Order: sequence, then structure tokens, then C-alpha cells
Amino acid sequence: MDNEYTVGDYLLDRLSFSGISELFGVPGDYNLRFLDSVINHQQITWIGCTNELNAAYGADGYARTKGIAALLTTFGVGELSALNGIAGSYAEYVPVVHIVGAPALTSQRKGELLHHTLGDGDFSHFMRMSEPVSVAQATLTPENALAEIDRVIEEVMYHSRPGYLLLPSDVAALPVSTRAHALPARQPPFSSSSLEAFVAAAENLLRDATRVSVLADFLADRFRVKDALEQWMEAVPLAHATLLMGKGLFNEQQAHFAGTYSGAASAPSTREAIEGADVVITVGVKFTDTITAGFTQQLPAGKCIDLQPFFARVGDQIFHQLPMEKTVRVLHRLTAELASGRVPYRVKRNTLPLSHDQLLGQCAFWQQIQDFLQPGDVLVAEQGTACFGAAALNLPQDCQFVVQPLWGSIGFTLPAAFGVQIAMPDRRVVLLIGDGSAQLTLQGLGAAIRYGLPPIIFVINNDGYTVERAIHGETQRYNDIAQWNWTQFPAAFGGKEVFSARADSPQGLKEAIEKATAQRQMAWIEVVLPKMDIPELLSSVTKSLAKRNSGQ
Amino acid sequence: MDNEYTVGDYLLDRLSFSGISELFGVPGDYNLRFLDSVINHQQITWIGCTNELNAAYGADGYARTKGIAALLTTFGVGELSALNGIAGSYAEYVPVVHIVGAPALTSQRKGELLHHTLGDGDFSHFMRMSEPVSVAQATLTPENALAEIDRVIEEVMYHSRPGYLLLPSDVAALPVSTRAHALPARQPPFSSSSLEAFVAAAENLLRDATRVSVLADFLADRFRVKDALEQWMEAVPLAHATLLMGKGLFNEQQAHFAGTYSGAASAPSTREAIEGADVVITVGVKFTDTITAGFTQQLPAGKCIDLQPFFARVGDQIFHQLPMEKTVRVLHRLTAELASGRVPYRVKRNTLPLSHDQLLGQCAFWQQIQDFLQPGDVLVAEQGTACFGAAALNLPQDCQFVVQPLWGSIGFTLPAAFGVQIAMPDRRVVLLIGDGSAQLTLQGLGAAIRYGLPPIIFVINNDGYTVERAIHGETQRYNDIAQWNWTQFPAAFGGKEVFSARADSPQGLKEAIEKATAQRQMAWIEVVLPKMDIPELLSSVTKSLAKRNSGQ
Repeated sequence: MDNEYTVGDYLLDRLSFSGISELFGVPGDYNLRFLDSVINHQQITWIGCTNELNAAYGADGYARTKGIAALLTTFGVGELSALNGIAGSYAEYVPVVHIVGAPALTSQRKGELLHHTLGDGDFSHFMRMSEPVSVAQATLTPENALAEIDRVIEEVMYHSRPGYLLLPSDVAALPVSTRAHALPARQPPFSSSSLEAFVAAAENLLRDATRVSVLADFLADRFRVKDALEQWMEAVPLAHATLLMGKGLFNEQQAHFAGTYSGAASAPSTREAIEGADVVITVGVKFTDTITAGFTQQLPAGKCIDLQPFFARVGDQIFHQLPMEKTVRVLHRLTAELASGRVPYRVKRNTLPLSHDQLLGQCAFWQQIQDFLQPGDVLVAEQGTACFGAAALNLPQDCQFVVQPLWGSIGFTLPAAFGVQIAMPDRRVVLLIGDGSAQLTLQGLGAAIRYGLPPIIFVINNDGYTVERAIHGETQRYNDIAQWNWTQFPAAFGGKEVFSARADSPQGLKEAIEKATAQRQMAWIEVVLPKMDIPELLSSVTKSLAKRNSGQ
Repeated sequence: MDNEYTVGDYLLDRLSFSGISELFGVPGDYNLRFLDSVINHQQITWIGCTNELNAAYGADGYARTKGIAALLTTFGVGELSALNGIAGSYAEYVPVVHIVGAPALTSQRKGELLHHTLGDGDFSHFMRMSEPVSVAQATLTPENALAEIDRVIEEVMYHSRPGYLLLPSDVAALPVSTRAHALPARQPPFSSSSLEAFVAAAENLLRDATRVSVLADFLADRFRVKDALEQWMEAVPLAHATLLMGKGLFNEQQAHFAGTYSGAASAPSTREAIEGADVVITVGVKFTDTITAGFTQQLPAGKCIDLQPFFARVGDQIFHQLPMEKTVRVLHRLTAELASGRVPYRVKRNTLPLSHDQLLGQCAFWQQIQDFLQPGDVLVAEQGTACFGAAALNLPQDCQFVVQPLWGSIGFTLPAAFGVQIAMPDRRVVLLIGDGSAQLTLQGLGAAIRYGLPPIIFVINNDGYTVERAIHGETQRYNDIAQWNWTQFPAAFGGKEVFSARADSPQGLKEAIEKATAQRQMAWIEVVLPKMDIPELLSSVTKSLAKRNSGQ
């Protein structure tokens, strides 16, 4: 009986075929039988987390670097705790399959008053609560289980967003005779006549342009055109930049890379390189408030070519049924033809401001982080001073960058960095997180220690919610937090091997970084920075947020 | 301008009039301006928490002991993190006003792509996600704000369940000229003809009964008939018991108190006292799976009188428009009249089994807890071995008991005990929580230390998810957790004064309890218990759950 192939096994095989080799989650009595299948599965490893929100953040980080992830929670209590994490994945187009272990269908159909329910015999509430943050949902039954598993996972991959599977405990254990096999990826709709019209319109606009710039963002990563973009930028000398959400898309060491574009808050050379062009090609861009310092982008009116995952625009004209992967290649060809013989625009490189201060402040901190980063690192930066400060870094080659500026849920990165490290055990994962944020998801440190992972974690202790102080209430009590003894946590979580240090001077930070670099263990470095010292970009962003909150 | 009376001030006054003196929450940029009003308010104190789930649990614990609570989160990220806590309040009838600071209406109406949104210009998603777990919702506008604040808070109090207020930042700051004043409580519908018919039916049933028992549960507490019940039980010698969810409703030192009723898993004397009666009067009872060992209650068919908050039943007959407060008083009178001259049933007292073991196990642990408890304590017991073990305790007089057996979200009690202690600073709060549960919400300890609270906390270290092991997968890896150095956490969280100890023998536990009792500081005692030693009641409950999960 135990060796029979079940719905649970089929689901796990399907996850495995889609590229998943780890399953994040927390056990609960409605998912225990499915967990037996997980433990017995040859390709999938169970990653038990300390709570469901952290598990969801971990799955999100994993999916951002590995392409897709899966999360297992239990009915009601578990799944609702994970919802904020799932919503972040939805907002930022991160594909996560959320599997929820549910009461047996026999109990559901009798309307029993079970624990982990609202006590009203209705088992559909929580799936409804997940609807706004998932692209597909299904309650698995003996009749539909295999078809619905296929459908939901396909939707997740196609839209690069979360899907929801409710798996009753008796359905999970149900024997089935069909085994899962690999399915071809679903292709987006494509119209060749639409492509012809798009090419004509784009050519028309580009022909007279003396300067063309390229601005890419996170959807280019999520819809897998990163490689095509890089080939394009290698081959054609166009000034190019990303917004903060898509940082890491380009090789930032390339001569024509112009930096991180943030509208009016950009470095002057970045702004000039992008906004000063006659035609701007945007790839996978969504202009949201924090990455544009409050919608201050100024692109040439009617002179933009906008490539979105499933369609494109030239000026005001929209062209449907055009996958981004195709439009990127077409523009690569067009711009190459038109560029030949022209003198490329010379991009001025941004460099970080130098600090010769004896005190450790933002300036000295970012200099040291810049020097410390190595090719191949994955840099994870928390919303707040970390992420807006990191915008000014020049990433070494093959650096990946993980941030969450649209959803912006503080505490996200500690468990997300855990997920990234699980996905990429051989890469060096570097996490920058503030003290206010780390308080929300502190258990993420415990999880990383439990699994013996070696990330290097900088906890920026600036004594409270600095980003909130910058928006409103600089000295208000509600922006204070408790002072914890940060360096004691690794030992409390059982991390005997963790290198733990506190740095409150440039020299102290230098020594801590040297020690952290010399080993291949986790490092946990508390960096003491002044309360109201904030990166320049963050200062522009928070001013615009404060203005908007007052209804102006 | 700053001294003008605003919508935010009105809301705070209204909360204050409803009995709230503390507001739990986490700041976020959409609620910062409202927080200025909070800080300036004379009656309301801000309680900043480490994350939103813990804040929601804290508010829940506060409401369970103080009668009502309020929670403040920020749009999207904050409110969704709190949803599991709010759902628990909804399931278990705990009145919590959830206030969500939202983007300015001016931004919402323009459909701006703001952070903390799904990036689609739609600001209604999250209120919809809260609908299944709240009795009333409102988006506050300049036109409706005061009326909707009144309505939602009234609904919360009337139904004893959560309500949702979306408070845009510009609306919070809007000056208004009407000040809040106290409102009379809304009265439930009452029909005197229905009452007459009910009295006749009840009298008819009771007249021939030689033995009548009373079984009460949590709804009797939530709909405020505790005092009326106690007067009844003092005056009329009826055998009475609670289910686990309502434990603490009765004076357990009273001669006719029969213990905690759990269906077939009850102590034999409790079962006989309740089920052996000719007529059973149930007050505020909902028979759910965990508190009945899987629906094993056996009450005399057609011979029950069931009092619910807004109606009553006699046998199969239902009587509408009868508030529980009225039906309790009527039955008090009826049973008193009929009892005179009859010999009351003699309830046998349950006592805890004695342990003379040299090893510390469940038996010895519960004996020591029994001896340690004092009149007036508030005992908070986590779902799992703690809560099912505590069922067998005889509570001293005026003990309150906080558990969550229906929603059963593990990790709930650490922040809930924090909320209880905030609500009742002068009571001794005793928390019993397992190691698996404490991992989910560990920051709750940090919060208690920050506010200098003195709860006595026992962390039962039985090396993993013992309750899950008992259901399924006793030795499976997914029921293991990381071993943390529990006693080091108070110091890491900055709690220099906290008494922290580890007890792994009866003698060690005795000494730790003595030290904890001798001071008026927080105590944090790790109690090492065998992995698979579980209280008897839990064993019956988990067997029924395992059976149900397999679809039988």
C-alpha cells in the first residue's frame, strides 16, 4: 500500500519536471501524509521552515534565482500566515506553487466543524482569500486531481506568478495509475502580421534617431529574456540602464551600461544617458512609485518603444500577440543595422562618493561593500536603506541582485536569502538588512543555521525604522524599536560555527569583512550606522512618498 | 493645524469609549500620520510589535481578557501578515478592530502604481481578502468616515468578531467638527412570545428530569454571561462542566464542578456527571473536533436545552430572538424552582495522577504546575501538549484560561500572552508553550522584554512537533525541528533582568519555579520533557484526527 503511486507522488513528479528540487514549508496535521511522499521522493528535498511567512519568503527567493518554487502549508492557519509572502510573489511576478494540505474530502462534504476552520463547515473561504494573489486555483478531487495539477502548474510557469492547489489529505494518498511526465512549455500567442506592423513602426521611429537608449526592468528577467538582452547589449553600442527592480539584468562592467535609473533621482550621467536619447526602448518595465522617486521619469513623448511580456507599443500604438522574447530579438537586429557607421553615445561611469571619515556612515559602508563584492555573488538587499543604497553599486560580472521594491514587505530578505542559498548552494550569498526589518523574520537566521548555509549577512543597526523616519515622524516613538544584542543570536540559534561580529568604525568593518571572506561559513555582522544617515536616493524617494501620503 | 480634531482622533476616541486603552501594531508609511494622532491621544497607548502576526495575536489575547482590542497595520504587506491572527479571532469570536493605513484617496482614485500594491492600480484586493474573516468592512472617505467608524465598531462589539477599517492617509488627517461620544450598546432582537414558548418547552422537559447537568463553553464567555452563569451555579446545585475552549468560565473549586468535558476522552467522573443526566443544558457550546476527541460527545437525544447567543433550542425545537443573557437567567429560575427538595447529584472530583518518577515527564510536570498556580492567575496554554495537558488541571479561583483549540494556530500564545499581560498588568500571566510552537513567534519574547512585562513562561522542549508526531509520522524528519539554546534568548533580546533556566529533572523544575515565584520579573524556563510522552487527552484526540485525515 505504501509503495503505490499516489496523487501526491504525481504532484511531486510534476514539480520536479518543472525544475523544482526543494519544497519549502511547515508541517501541519492536514499535510502529514503528503509529507511522507515528499520524504520518499527521489528528486525533491523537504526544507522545513520555522514559520509559514518565512517559508513563503524562502520559496520566493528560491524562485527568483532558480525559476520556480513550491511551498507547502496546512489549511487555514498555515496558508494565511503565508499570504503576505505569496502576495509579494504575485506583485513581483515570481512563480510559486502554493500547496495547501486540507481536511479529507469526506470531512469537507459532511461540513464537519474541524480545527483550522472558521467553525462553520465551509471549506472554501481560504481559497477565495488566495484568489486575488494567484493566477490559478484548484481544489483537488479524485476526479480532477491530475488534470488540475497540470493546469495550475502550467499557469504558474506561463504567467510567472503564484498558483494555489488545495490538496485534501485523502486525495493526496489516493493511488493513481498515470505517471507524470515532462510537459512542453505553453507558448504565448504570436501573430506574424502584428510582428510585421510592429517592425515597420519601430523602424520608422528608429530611422531618424541619432541616439537610442535601452531601459530594462524586472519583467525582462521574469519572462526569461536576460540572455537575449545581454547578447544585444554586447553586440550593439547602446546606452542602457535598469530600474532598481531589475538591477542585475545587465553586465554592469560593460562600457555602455549607464547605471540604475530612478527618474529625477538618478545620477545625472544615468539620467542623461537614458532620457537624453531620441528614442527610448523599454523592456519589461513597470513604472512604480519607489523606483521612480514618485513617477519622475521623463521619457521622450511619443518616442518610446515599449516591450511587454505579451505585447509591445511604439509610441501610442499597441501591437498584440507579440512575446517579448521575439520583440527583443527583432530590435536587436534593427538597432544593429541602424547603428552601423554611427558614433555611439559615450556613457559616463558613476562612481560611489569617497569617504575619508573616521566615523562609520553610509558613505564608508557602501565603499566597503563595493570592494567586497565579487563576480558571481548574489546580493540580496532589504527594502529601506539597504536596497536604495545598493542602487548606486556597480555590480561585478554575473552578480545577481534580489530586491522587492514594489511589494516592499520589510523582513522579506532574511528568509529570501535563505531560499536563494538553498537554490544556489555554490554561490556566495550576501544579505544587507536593517535592524527594524530583521526583527520581523529573525527566525530566518535559525533556519539558515539549521541547514548549515554560509551566507554573509550584514545587519545594519541604525536604531529603528530609518526609512519611516525619513518619510514621517523622525523622532517619534513609533519609529523606535527595541535594542537587541544582535551578535548573540547565532549562538542562541545553535550556530556554533557562525562568525559573529559588531562593527562601529570603518576599521572594525574592514576587519570583520576580512574574517568573513577568509572562511566558508556563515557570517553575521552587525554594522552600527547613524540613525538619520540615509542614502541620497532614499532621501528623494521618501520625500515623494511623504508628499503623496498627505494627498497632494 | 496640528491641533485640529481629525478623523483619526474621532476613531481613537471611539475606540477608547468602547473600552480600549492600548493599540497594537507595526508602523508603515501609510499609517504614520495616524500614528501621530495615536501618540497624542490621552487615553490610548501605542504598543509597537515586532511583526504584524504577533501584533494580531497580541490584540487577540488582549481582547479575550479585556473585552475588545484594536490593531493597526499598513496596507497590503502589513494587513496580510496579520490575516491568520484575525482569522483566529473570527473563528473564536474575539472582537478586534483591524485598522489598515492606506494610500491617500487621491492616489487611489488615480490608480497609481504604488508600493505595497499588486501594481495594478486596484486598491480593493486586500479588503476583499479580509471579508471572510470580518463581520464588517469599510473604506473610509471624507463623506462616510464617522458613520462607518461607528457602524464597524458597533458590529464588532455586537458579534464579538473582527471588523476592518481601511483608513487612507489623507482621510486620517482630515479635520472634522463632530466629536465622538459614548454610544449605547446595540441590543440583540428579543421576542417575549418566543420567550414564553421557550419557558413552557423547557419547563416541560425539566419537570420530569431527576438529574440536570450544565455544559458551557466559550460563547458564554464571549457573549458576557459568565457572571450570570456563576451566580446560577452558586445558587443551584447542578453538576456542571466546560469544554476545553471555555475552561475558566466556572469556579473550579466549587463542589458541583465536574471538570473539563471532552466527549469519550473525558475523565469517567466528568463524563458521568454530564452525559448521565436526564437533561443537559448547553450554554454557548460549539462541538468541534479537537475538544470532543472527534465528535464523541453523547448527550441524551431530544433532552437537551441549548442556549446560543441569539436563540435557543429545546430538543429539536428552535426559539428565535432570545439573547443568551435572558435564557440563562430564565433557566436559573426554572432549575432553582425544580431543584428544591431534590437531592443533588454528587460530583466526584478529578485529581491529577501522581508521579514518583525520578525523571521529569508529563505527569510530574503537570503536578508541579497544579501546585504552582494561584488564584487570579491567567493561564495561557498553547495548542498541543500544553493545552490538552492543562485540560486536566483544577484551576484555582478567579483563574482565567486562554487557549485556541478551534483555530489552533501554533505560535499563537507567546504574543497572545504578551497581549494578555498588557491588558492586565497586575495579574500574574503564566504561559505554557512547546518548542515547535515557540519557534514561529519567538519575537514575542522580545516584545515582552521591551515593555518590561513579567509573565512566567515555560517552554516545553520535547524536541519537535510532538502533537504532529502523535497524529502521523512519529519518527519522520519533517516533525523534527532545530535544537535552539532556549535559555540564551532573553539576554539576546536585551532582557538583563529576566530569570532564565533549564529544567530537566523534577527537582530542577521545582527550584526554577521557586525562583520564578520569588521575584516579580519575567521568568523563562525551558522544561525538557521526553519526545513522545503526551497527555492522555491528547492521545485520544490525535487518534481521532489521524483517522479523519485518512478519510475514514
